[in-house]
Amino acid sequence: MIPTISLIPLIQLASGDRLSLQVYQFKGAQPGKKAYLQSNLHGAEISGNAVIQQLIEFLVDLYPTQLSGEIWLVPVCNPLSTAQRSHHFSSGRYNTYDGKDWNRIFWDYEKTTVDIAAFAKANLDLNPLEIQQKYRQQILAEFNTISQEIQSQRGLPYSEFYRYQLQSLCLDADYVIDLHSSTNQAIDYLYCFQARQSSAKAFLLDHGILMNDYDGDAFDEAFLKPWLALEKALADWGKPIKFDIESWTLELGSGMIMNPNSVEKGVRGIKNYLSTKGMLNLPGFPLSETESYQVLLTPKKQLKRYYAPAGGMIQSRVPLGSSIQKDQNIYQILNFNKSGEMPRIIDVFAESDGFIFDVSTNHSVNQFDYVLGVMLQ
Amino acid sequence: MIPTISLIPLIQLASGDRLSLQVYQFKGAQPGKKAYLQSNLHGAEISGNAVIQQLIEFLVDLYPTQLSGEIWLVPVCNPLSTAQRSHHFSSGRYNTYDGKDWNRIFWDYEKTTVDIAAFAKANLDLNPLEIQQKYRQQILAEFNTISQEIQSQRGLPYSEFYRYQLQSLCLDADYVIDLHSSTNQAIDYLYCFQARQSSAKAFLLDHGILMNDYDGDAFDEAFLKPWLALEKALADWGKPIKFDIESWTLELGSGMIMNPNSVEKGVRGIKNYLSTKGMLNLPGFPLSETESYQVLLTPKKQLKRYYAPAGGMIQSRVPLGSSIQKDQNIYQILNFNKSGEMPRIIDVFAESDGFIFDVSTNHSVNQFDYVLGVMLQ
Amino acid sequence: MIPTISLIPLIQLASGDRLSLQVYQFKGAQPGKKAYLQSNLHGAEISGNAVIQQLIEFLVDLYPTQLSGEIWLVPVCNPLSTAQRSHHFSSGRYNTYDGKDWNRIFWDYEKTTVDIAAFAKANLDLNPLEIQQKYRQQILAEFNTISQEIQSQRGLPYSEFYRYQLQSLCLDADYVIDLHSSTNQAIDYLYCFQARQSSAKAFLLDHGILMNDYDGDAFDEAFLKPWLALEKALADWGKPIKFDIESWTLELGSGMIMNPNSVEKGVRGIKNYLSTKGMLNLPGFPLSETESYQVLLTPKKQLKRYYAPAGGMIQSRVPLGSSIQKDQNIYQILNFNKSGEMPRIIDVFAESDGFIFDVSTNHSVNQFDYVLGVMLQ
Amino acid sequence: MIPTISLIPLIQLASGDRLSLQVYQFKGAQPGKKAYLQSNLHGAEISGNAVIQQLIEFLVDLYPTQLSGEIWLVPVCNPLSTAQRSHHFSSGRYNTYDGKDWNRIFWDYEKTTVDIAAFAKANLDLNPLEIQQKYRQQILAEFNTISQEIQSQRGLPYSEFYRYQLQSLCLDADYVIDLHSSTNQAIDYLYCFQARQSSAKAFLLDHGILMNDYDGDAFDEAFLKPWLALEKALADWGKPIKFDIESWTLELGSGMIMNPNSVEKGVRGIKNYLSTKGMLNLPGFPLSETESYQVLLTPKKQLKRYYAPAGGMIQSRVPLGSSIQKDQNIYQILNFNKSGEMPRIIDVFAESDGFIFDVSTNHSVNQFDYVLGVMLQ
Repeated sequence: MIPTISLIPLIQLASGDRLSLQVYQFKGAQPGKKAYLQSNLHGAEISGNAVIQQLIEFLVDLYPTQLSGEIWLVPVCNPLSTAQRSHHFSSGRYNTYDGKDWNRIFWDYEKTTVDIAAFAKANLDLNPLEIQQKYRQQILAEFNTISQEIQSQRGLPYSEFYRYQLQSLCLDADYVIDLHSSTNQAIDYLYCFQARQSSAKAFLLDHGILMNDYDGDAFDEAFLKPWLALEKALADWGKPIKFDIESWTLELGSGMIMNPNSVEKGVRGIKNYLSTKGMLNLPGFPLSETESYQVLLTPKKQLKRYYAPAGGMIQSRVPLGSSIQKDQNIYQILNFNKSGEMPRIIDVFAESDGFIFDVSTNHSVNQFDYVLGVMLQ
Repeated sequence: MIPTISLIPLIQLASGDRLSLQVYQFKGAQPGKKAYLQSNLHGAEISGNAVIQQLIEFLVDLYPTQLSGEIWLVPVCNPLSTAQRSHHFSSGRYNTYDGKDWNRIFWDYEKTTVDIAAFAKANLDLNPLEIQQKYRQQILAEFNTISQEIQSQRGLPYSEFYRYQLQSLCLDADYVIDLHSSTNQAIDYLYCFQARQSSAKAFLLDHGILMNDYDGDAFDEAFLKPWLALEKALADWGKPIKFDIESWTLELGSGMIMNPNSVEKGVRGIKNYLSTKGMLNLPGFPLSETESYQVLLTPKKQLKRYYAPAGGMIQSRVPLGSSIQKDQNIYQILNFNKSGEMPRIIDVFAESDGFIFDVSTNHSVNQFDYVLGVMLQ
Repeated sequence: MIPTISLIPLIQLASGDRLSLQVYQFKGAQPGKKAYLQSNLHGAEISGNAVIQQLIEFLVDLYPTQLSGEIWLVPVCNPLSTAQRSHHFSSGRYNTYDGKDWNRIFWDYEKTTVDIAAFAKANLDLNPLEIQQKYRQQILAEFNTISQEIQSQRGLPYSEFYRYQLQSLCLDADYVIDLHSSTNQAIDYLYCFQARQSSAKAFLLDHGILMNDYDGDAFDEAFLKPWLALEKALADWGKPIKFDIESWTLELGSGMIMNPNSVEKGVRGIKNYLSTKGMLNLPGFPLSETESYQVLLTPKKQLKRYYAPAGGMIQSRVPLGSSIQKDQNIYQILNFNKSGEMPRIIDVFAESDGFIFDVSTNHSVNQFDYVLGVMLQ
Repeated sequence: MIPTISLIPLIQLASGDRLSLQVYQFKGAQPGKKAYLQSNLHGAEISGNAVIQQLIEFLVDLYPTQLSGEIWLVPVCNPLSTAQRSHHFSSGRYNTYDGKDWNRIFWDYEKTTVDIAAFAKANLDLNPLEIQQKYRQQILAEFNTISQEIQSQRGLPYSEFYRYQLQSLCLDADYVIDLHSSTNQAIDYLYCFQARQSSAKAFLLDHGILMNDYDGDAFDEAFLKPWLALEKALADWGKPIKFDIESWTLELGSGMIMNPNSVEKGVRGIKNYLSTKGMLNLPGFPLSETESYQVLLTPKKQLKRYYAPAGGMIQSRVPLGSSIQKDQNIYQILNFNKSGEMPRIIDVFAESDGFIFDVSTNHSVNQFDYVLGVMLQ
């Protein structure tokens, strides 16, 4: 298959240069669902770029008959964050202009004036597909009103324009996959919404975070939240429906690093996921282990982060991926002072049992800096 | 009067050095209200430091009998933001570690599990002062539970520790005054809560923004919002009370600049405000113009900001403090390109009548960068 | 006249986007000299962009017969520095990747293995134009060896590639004009080489810095220094020649600002300069005041800078453009402490008479930060 | 032994807070040489802090009779660079205020007006120790003239004050050891001056860089260069002397990391070095392997660095510590574009045989960014 490649201008710099998005669209021989994938929304989180490049190479080698529907892929989807550097490091997590986390800016239909309960009630007679299409049309219609603001003399801030461009590409999709990594160093895992656990296993990752508490500003949330709200409203009216609409954030390893193992897991999981969804027709897929795969899902509220009790250097930290016990010594701070005393070693102990899924890259910490993250067990 | 001067350690850096707060407390001969003032919460907003220094000098020269109650003053109240610099410029608006606006981090009692309506109902029999004291005790008790988290092995992020220290100083105050400036360049004005307009005139500033829409994360909001909620709850139960509890943000001119005119206005307004409140007993104060002073209050929703429609350099911008008419040419962008064309001049026109209260310091703008702010009229 | 507009790719970002230069070339009806102008080498120094845009507009309206030779213009000549921002401010003076000042990176022919004394001796029989052409060929030949390094597997750092691209455009020019501003806030002035004072008056600026001490790394120096060395070598062999080859840095006002007065002075001075050089044939030019114009040239060693003796805020500073006397109070530091003392006002006095030509934009200073610059008199 | 601990104020921030140095001095029972050690001159290079802390613990446990002379230790010796952070990363290599590399700012006696040849000639009659003492007095006298500048109204930039404080501590030392790491990721190695190879083996490190080309601005260079110049001058007058004065930069592993292996090598090497110099009297030291230890010293000119030929992500890079052959594929760039083409994999090949001693931490690179460093063999 040969993809359609299209260019979307994002921003003109003061120098007159422009930064853009480039979208790769594969269209199958049969109509079907639309899957949307992007990578590198945060500047340091690069491994998803290799996942997308390997998926593009893979799809190019397929016959159109092996794909039902469309797959859209957007690597390096945030050129401004990728360009944010300090010295040699990629610090593109927050827009330095307005302080906003690049993944907390997205447009959430549920936060407009829409009355979802009323919509649900008014459409109880329709069948699920009709409801889905009608609701989708409403979302898109509301979203498109933003384009007037873009044309105005007043203009709008970049984060609002940027989210418009990115969400324009995916609001009509069925499956959205956003490829992230830790800003720091982490295991491979995924974020899973409470109503979509059964689909999670297709990604063949051992760990996940179960989203029981979110505000809709993240890319995956902004896409799925209005649909979960509709499902709830319909259920409240006695008509439970689960739409085949899903969104996922995969966290593939550590920041600033192209870990081949994380990349390989990402590629394999996505092929398997799209196969279980019937979009890809591949020999041997879905993989036989899928059905019985166990993803250990930790509720988001069960994540606990440790912060440095003093300024200094982290040493003897328990490794990433370790299980820890309550009261275990999990790291030390080598602590200096300017008060005429000897340097000290401060021991920090676990407050509870758990599993270390994320650790800070930098061992030099100011007091209150992040040190490690634990999934409670 | 001689102030009590106390030092509060804030953060130990990785190098072992510490940054601290220093608080100046003046105690009058008579008991009375407590006023709390701070400056420089955002790194670039420095003119309030001179206001506080001049107030300290002024209070030192007063007799204790001229003060009823206590005045606490905290200049340079955010050493970490003051130390945030890039090249020669003060960029301390967002914490670079977590992206948070230093003035959107504060603890809001209303967001805890408190049931304010129930509290109001249960205390309808008490007199206003008793209600005030009881509610204050509840706020402080809830706030103090945070100190356990500070002692824990897990610790907490700096913004949570920092807000704890700063709010510890003011949660028992009656009047809170937070001295800001524009990050960019602005006129002198204040932020006023809807229920406190009558007190605003004592500051003798010509312009103000009326807060009809806020989330409680700013310093002034976090202090006053729970009291406004209580006032509303009491009114809902048929017992309207207006507590003599107020908070103010004064915006004194431009960032990175010590404008003597803005400083003088700040000092004069604060003396006059504290005199109208009966805390200061000064010859000639409250100033006679206070009673009839007109502050033009613009509702927050009537503020409109303009963003650059293209990358380039701003030129021929209408000056700060101008009134503008709809369709007036209010600035130009000198726009370069990398597409083989001639440079262009892009004219931008006003969308509506208004008053320019804030403009960007930097004339070099990427597309979507902030250019100017208008109070609609 | 219609310019030839050409695009020169500079750098590909990690995201695949590219930043480029765009060059505007005007060619006159008659052959003649080549003038090269650029602006915005440092990110904050933007007023030269308006100068170049106005010169382009002006040249477009001329008849080709009014120009002898060629004028090349490169606005926004350093897109990477223009894109360096911190919060709202343009901090593009140093490459954040390698710390290098963007105007201390240039290739200086005199620092290669060339033996200029030997060249001078070997060519004493030639006439000045022949010597000039032969020397120019040598410079260009040596410079072009860099292109092999660019093609190599090892590659080279960006500052070396960037200087290659920029110097490729001007090494064969006769007159080079580099348009800067202060990083901070300054009067309009120029940098003049010791052997080129007589030409300086054509720019009609009141002040200048006489370059008696330089290392060749700045753009103007890198261009002219090898020629000055040749002039000296020829003089040493008893054949004094002054080539009509010149380079200038104009400093047009303050950083981050498009001051229309500075822009107008720049445009007028450059038109007048090119007219005195016979490149432009304009009614009324060269302006009659040129001949008797007095530029006050201060030797570079007579510049003195003041640095803050304590941390705090600058106030009551003598204005930019003032003459000062020894022992005059020229500014104060509002100084806070964390040692339990009252805030202090520290007075700073002039060490000698002088003229204040540059002041810091930011009034918030750490100890040792730059405060103001003086031309001694 | 109990050290004397002294505090040296470095800089007062705009907020009134101060950053300081803290020096630990151990004095032996017998007089003797002075050794000076410091760590963390560059903000990211932290492993030397643990080396110094472990040496302090070790020295505390020694009897005074086991030390001849004095050992001064300064951990976290550059609080301003340690505090330079961007997001979570330590970017403290260049002073963001003036762009200067923190290790290219030091005072080099040879660059003053001193005539070393004349000094050598005038003192040929003295014995080596007398020459050493007299020369040292001259260095210190010249250095102390800087203190007048510090007291002046004009003040001086921070880098000049900072170097004064740091060099005040070591200019009278006999052995100077500066503990660094890579900014990126590196093996353990040392920098060795051409005239001091025989002493290098005591550090028991496998690799070193032989300094044949330096300008005196680095800390180790600024200390030793004037002595090497004197040795050369004396030799030129026919009186070759090698003073027992040495300076070393140890590079202990990677930036932002506390690698226990690098720390252990550092501690062991320094103990062994000070034992071979007769300062420490320890059982089993100097270690028996010292005499025959082979340090592979690569001349500085034989270091070659590779820079990215295109923007993108580094993948499949040959590991740190590998030997490579000419024409070997040593890394790939995953290269995206905004010109409608497919992503590409670009292979980069070695230009020559060598050993990879340093690699970039960040796999996301703009074109021309640093990728890896090779010691040619």
